[in-house]
Amino acid sequence: MLVDLYEAAKFLRSAEDAVIITHRSPDGDCIGAGYGLKDILAELGIRSRVVCHDVIPKRYAFLTDGITNEDFEPKTIIAVDIADTQLMGDYEKIYGDKVQLCIDHHESNKNYAERTLLRADATAACEVIYDLAKYMGVNISRHCAMCLYTGIATDSGCFKFECTTPRAHEIAAEMKRTYDINFAKINRNMFDVKSRGRMKLDAQLTDLMEEYLDGRVVIICITQEKMKELGVAMEELEGFAPKTIQLEGTEVGILMREREDGVFKCSFRSAEKVNVSQICQTLGGGGHARAAGCSASGDISEIKEYLVEAVRKALDE
Amino acid sequence: MLVDLYEAAKFLRSAEDAVIITHRSPDGDCIGAGYGLKDILAELGIRSRVVCHDVIPKRYAFLTDGITNEDFEPKTIIAVDIADTQLMGDYEKIYGDKVQLCIDHHESNKNYAERTLLRADATAACEVIYDLAKYMGVNISRHCAMCLYTGIATDSGCFKFECTTPRAHEIAAEMKRTYDINFAKINRNMFDVKSRGRMKLDAQLTDLMEEYLDGRVVIICITQEKMKELGVAMEELEGFAPKTIQLEGTEVGILMREREDGVFKCSFRSAEKVNVSQICQTLGGGGHARAAGCSASGDISEIKEYLVEAVRKALDE
Repeated sequence: MLVDLYEAAKFLRSAEDAVIITHRSPDGDCIGAGYGLKDILAELGIRSRVVCHDVIPKRYAFLTDGITNEDFEPKTIIAVDIADTQLMGDYEKIYGDKVQLCIDHHESNKNYAERTLLRADATAACEVIYDLAKYMGVNISRHCAMCLYTGIATDSGCFKFECTTPRAHEIAAEMKRTYDINFAKINRNMFDVKSRGRMKLDAQLTDLMEEYLDGRVVIICITQEKMKELGVAMEELEGFAPKTIQLEGTEVGILMREREDGVFKCSFRSAEKVNVSQICQTLGGGGHARAAGCSASGDISEIKEYLVEAVRKALDE
Repeated sequence: MLVDLYEAAKFLRSAEDAVIITHRSPDGDCIGAGYGLKDILAELGIRSRVVCHDVIPKRYAFLTDGITNEDFEPKTIIAVDIADTQLMGDYEKIYGDKVQLCIDHHESNKNYAERTLLRADATAACEVIYDLAKYMGVNISRHCAMCLYTGIATDSGCFKFECTTPRAHEIAAEMKRTYDINFAKINRNMFDVKSRGRMKLDAQLTDLMEEYLDGRVVIICITQEKMKELGVAMEELEGFAPKTIQLEGTEVGILMREREDGVFKCSFRSAEKVNVSQICQTLGGGGHARAAGCSASGDISEIKEYLVEAVRKALDE
């Protein structure tokens, strides 16, 4: 059931021993939302722990270091930034059908929770959580602000993408006026600083780009073998997807990352015209109009053919 | 003489047949400031023309197309985003000692004008001009907003760099609530879309990076020959400078671009510690703490040695 700020706030105040579930292949928004919400619950005197199917990438350690995920039998189950229980990984079996509150911003949200606070027009789940905290009059600590800023910045490509709302800018302005936080350092670590392996991979970008439909579609496929060759971890490929639409004239870009043998995480980016969330939903995934994803397994060539065909149809419409 | 908003506004209202000078190697901020101010003067019934020593890069055509730079004997001389008359190129001789109002945000501004509206803490000259227009109660047209947004976005690396003020975010929020502008398209064209030549150059980034002082300093030098080889124009190298500080551990990056035979435009970027504006001022240039520039001519190796030595001193302090 979709709920508003009033009902979400009422539920949060009554929460007790909460588990906060984040999605697999965690990014800045789900980590920021998870740990930001944990801070807000702490202000309310409620203990909680953030869980994730995958290991949190090192670059987010500044948000998670020193934070204790307490051990208890959970009484409240919350999901953040999760459109579909599939994205919980191993936690789907344990909590998938027991989520009492989901806070999200994906238009493809499956409405699987008892209560869903969904703002599909929000830049990030962190934007929704910031507004929820303000609505509740709960103090937003410096650490909480860092978490929420990180989510807004990473999901918006640092205020670059179409999903960037006026509200995202207002929140950034409020935070910059309120907290002594090195925002530029966060941005630098999220967007600019790269390992030598990642630098080498970036250098191979043009070689890796496969153009289809006269360059309107670009696929970059990074296999396990390629990652091994360059010494790059899967997590270091976050932020690589937008590169698939950098070439003049490209409308849709797809980054395929081999998660395990023959299983690919496919991240779609759209320049302007195509709603890639709709495409990904037909492929069992979801997301936003200009950034979405799905999984695919099997023969690489067949997957590519299939994905290009799906985009071709959307471009023809 | 430094002036405040009141005096700048009073002067602008009395302007007549104005020339607005922008700096050579024009970027989004001086072009946005020039054409944005032209719109504001038009609202006041004052005709004007924007001049620049260099040709305006194609990517800014969306701001300049269809705008008439009227022909007249100027009575008012205004400079925007120009810290030093040297940066006017050929216009220095004509107007260098006649500037009646300079609107700027460079801490290194030489105070060469009769009146200087300087806000060294502003993200961009466009931020100063937006606030000036608001102060004056002048209507900001959609085109003017596009100009001023472009300047703020480009000078801040799309709200990424340390120079990004809360005010920059507030202005972006106000604009997004007020105007029907495709901001994401502007951002995409400013930051992401690349020609094949520029893509090839990006692919050579790691090969072009020369590391000094254990990687704390990186120099990338792009000669005329290299540009010819790749079919890349000088103007396409804008936005390349931040790449010099992408490697983990790099504190200062320098992009050297050969403007003409043996004459290099040197763009400095600083990650966190070093004030590169101070370094560039000792080399006859200027700018901001984390982004500054100067010119150098002569033997490439000697220039590099000289620049590295200047940074070494600053790092030792």
